[in-house]
Amino acid sequence: MFEARNGVLHIEDVDFREIVRATGTPVYVTSRMLLEENIQTYRTHFGWARLLYAVKANNNLALMRIFARAGFGADVFSAGELYLALLAGFDRNYVLFNGNSKSDEEIEFGVRTGVRFSVDSIDELYTISEIASSLGRTVRIAFRVNPDISPETHPKIATGLRTSKFGIPSEEIFEAYRLALELPAVEPVGVHCHIGSQITDTSPFVEELEKMFEIAKRLEEMGVSLEFLDMGGGFGIDYEGDGRAEVGRFASALRPIYERGVAELKSRPELWIEPGRSLVANTTVLITKVNSVKRAYKNFVAVDAGFNLLLRPAMYDAYHRVAVANKFGLEGEEVYTVVGPICESGDVLAKDRKLPRVEKGDYIVVFDAGAYGFAMSSQYNGRPRCAEVLVDGSSFRVIREKEGFGDLISKQVIPEDLL
Amino acid sequence: MFEARNGVLHIEDVDFREIVRATGTPVYVTSRMLLEENIQTYRTHFGWARLLYAVKANNNLALMRIFARAGFGADVFSAGELYLALLAGFDRNYVLFNGNSKSDEEIEFGVRTGVRFSVDSIDELYTISEIASSLGRTVRIAFRVNPDISPETHPKIATGLRTSKFGIPSEEIFEAYRLALELPAVEPVGVHCHIGSQITDTSPFVEELEKMFEIAKRLEEMGVSLEFLDMGGGFGIDYEGDGRAEVGRFASALRPIYERGVAELKSRPELWIEPGRSLVANTTVLITKVNSVKRAYKNFVAVDAGFNLLLRPAMYDAYHRVAVANKFGLEGEEVYTVVGPICESGDVLAKDRKLPRVEKGDYIVVFDAGAYGFAMSSQYNGRPRCAEVLVDGSSFRVIREKEGFGDLISKQVIPEDLL
Ligand SMILES: Cc1ncc(COP(=O)(O)O)c(C=O)c1O
Ligand SMILES: Cc1ncc(COP(=O)(O)O)c(C=O)c1O
Repeated sequence: MFEARNGVLHIEDVDFREIVRATGTPVYVTSRMLLEENIQTYRTHFGWARLLYAVKANNNLALMRIFARAGFGADVFSAGELYLALLAGFDRNYVLFNGNSKSDEEIEFGVRTGVRFSVDSIDELYTISEIASSLGRTVRIAFRVNPDISPETHPKIATGLRTSKFGIPSEEIFEAYRLALELPAVEPVGVHCHIGSQITDTSPFVEELEKMFEIAKRLEEMGVSLEFLDMGGGFGIDYEGDGRAEVGRFASALRPIYERGVAELKSRPELWIEPGRSLVANTTVLITKVNSVKRAYKNFVAVDAGFNLLLRPAMYDAYHRVAVANKFGLEGEEVYTVVGPICESGDVLAKDRKLPRVEKGDYIVVFDAGAYGFAMSSQYNGRPRCAEVLVDGSSFRVIREKEGFGDLISKQVIPEDLL
Repeated sequence: MFEARNGVLHIEDVDFREIVRATGTPVYVTSRMLLEENIQTYRTHFGWARLLYAVKANNNLALMRIFARAGFGADVFSAGELYLALLAGFDRNYVLFNGNSKSDEEIEFGVRTGVRFSVDSIDELYTISEIASSLGRTVRIAFRVNPDISPETHPKIATGLRTSKFGIPSEEIFEAYRLALELPAVEPVGVHCHIGSQITDTSPFVEELEKMFEIAKRLEEMGVSLEFLDMGGGFGIDYEGDGRAEVGRFASALRPIYERGVAELKSRPELWIEPGRSLVANTTVLITKVNSVKRAYKNFVAVDAGFNLLLRPAMYDAYHRVAVANKFGLEGEEVYTVVGPICESGDVLAKDRKLPRVEKGDYIVVFDAGAYGFAMSSQYNGRPRCAEVLVDGSSFRVIREKEGFGDLISKQVIPEDLL
């Protein structure tokens, strides 16, 4: 979907320069076709499971509406994400309100919407029960289990370690369900887990699902009737290759565990999964313009997007493929380090990459930027955030307008004596 | 300025609970008295130098106007910061437009405003010369020198290393000035440097200033008439102690170097410094509410602010003092880890701190949050950004209104076929 035509990057059938003319740079550009392809891939391989989109990866409403129409549920991590998910039209029966730190206001909002909750602590369980009781509602809940699994990924995003802040330790989980069975206005109907993000090995997921079934078995014995086991997201993509997740590989590893697991249960809980990154990362590129090229200790290409717009390289040392959009497909000639406009040395988008000769005015395209890209953006260094565009065949639409200087001050108030 | 009265945090004479009633949590709260105190400290010790405020640390207009009125110049790193600085009323003769990656549009804007430029590369020099010529203007410039100095600080914010993306290597700097002397519409009048941030040792600064004078001497011989040597910011504060910088210590170490240096020059260039952190960090606290307490592998206190609002701990492993605002000054009883509401394990504000017994509904105050705090904030996980408040004696004013769900979607546009 990202093709070179006469050395120029096309997103589907759109010349990237047309987009840049309309929105300026930087700009995030999503291919709708790739999004639909990812949806189809999940349907093909995980048709036997229920798919929830992890909104945190990218909460653009246009993208979310595509997932909602395709029948996805949603994993939301705050009242804001819940608001966006309902606006996007997700079926609220399959919206799970996650989060390790929900405020009373968020809980009340969640209860009123009628979605299900993943409960992170006993403290939270009491709060939900109280709030739901006072509203005369019943909330269907799962507990988030901390399974004590160490996947190979960046420590900042490994969430299933014993030491992590998420969930209830497996030793204590049964006590939590027992309490939930007793408390008014909460009905335990699921088990929730999420071991981390960008995990490419299947074995941590297999281990996770096996643990979940062990827990499920004991829960059934306790009289919990389970509607779902939600194993979270985390399927890793190939940032160094084509940006895709091997969804089929994960599905083949998990299906036998699931079938064996449910065979040993009285009920037949659905398997829920919550992919984020593997649904959106590869659909989107970030296009930036070269402001200058400097031959110093290294060849530095200074572009107009930095960690204000794409935090992953600076925060996690993440790798993103890059190319020169207006010399796309051409042979690499020199080694360049692509840096952003932010005032810190860590603001490097791509280190030591062989690229065609780069000059001021060229465009650098950063691939696989659709997940945790715009979602983590800031206005750091006084930089308004950029536009987002959705390409569909030979046409494109702005799906998020770019900000201006006004957006740096729209919420600011100067006290009288400082006017 | 942050005192316990009956076990309750007061900011100057304001009970923090009054602020929280007005704005909710989280909320950033700045003490104007501390800000004025920092300004006075700099005036006392650096009266012999020119003070520029580094806007990147905190671009709230109310704070900026206080600096502008106190006679500070401003270091700005983008057209957006320049816009804010002029709006805040900084004297444009002492506004330096920095940045390693300025777009043509930013340069044109900067030229029209008549501020001085710090030029990061030869590429940029040509661009400025061309743009200024075409506008019939002359721009006074400094070059940013890369001095090849390794201060002890976090690698992401050490900006004067040979390998860093900033500035022109010292070997090449004379060639750059020679070129500037020849090109139309640019007039070299200064030297600019910045070796990094949060540096508490004086010796890297001494080394830096000595190098700058060596360069200045050769530049004089070349016929450059120097108005200023700008050695940047970077004075570190005591995050583990009282949050202050030992400004006097930096000043005493630098003054003799400056006096000796100018004595050897024909002209008497001003010394400019660009502190950010040491002017604002300790003036501001972030107040957050405890949503739940969980006794798992550790005692986790889950609050309503995470790295969406204060990125430093997650990004740089930075240390911030914390306390319980409604049990302020009370003896520590238990060890807690304070975590935010963001979906990543790295979202930890403070690790293993001894605090009075913490319960749901308590408030955690995070100190020294005025620099690179709100400035780096995002809406990650669908969380609207919080309010900012300025306290002045016994009264307070909201200086930035909090965002709502509307601010998550105000720029979003849904294409017709997805409505
Ligand atoms: C609970 C939960 N579910 C799903 C996801 C999505 O993970 P990924 O984008 O790696 O698929 C996350 C990511 O943080 C998460 O915290
Ligand atoms: C050029 C320049 N000047 C000044 C500063 C301010 O540094 P500090 O806040 O450490 O004083 C920075 C910080 O990045 C900078 O890049």
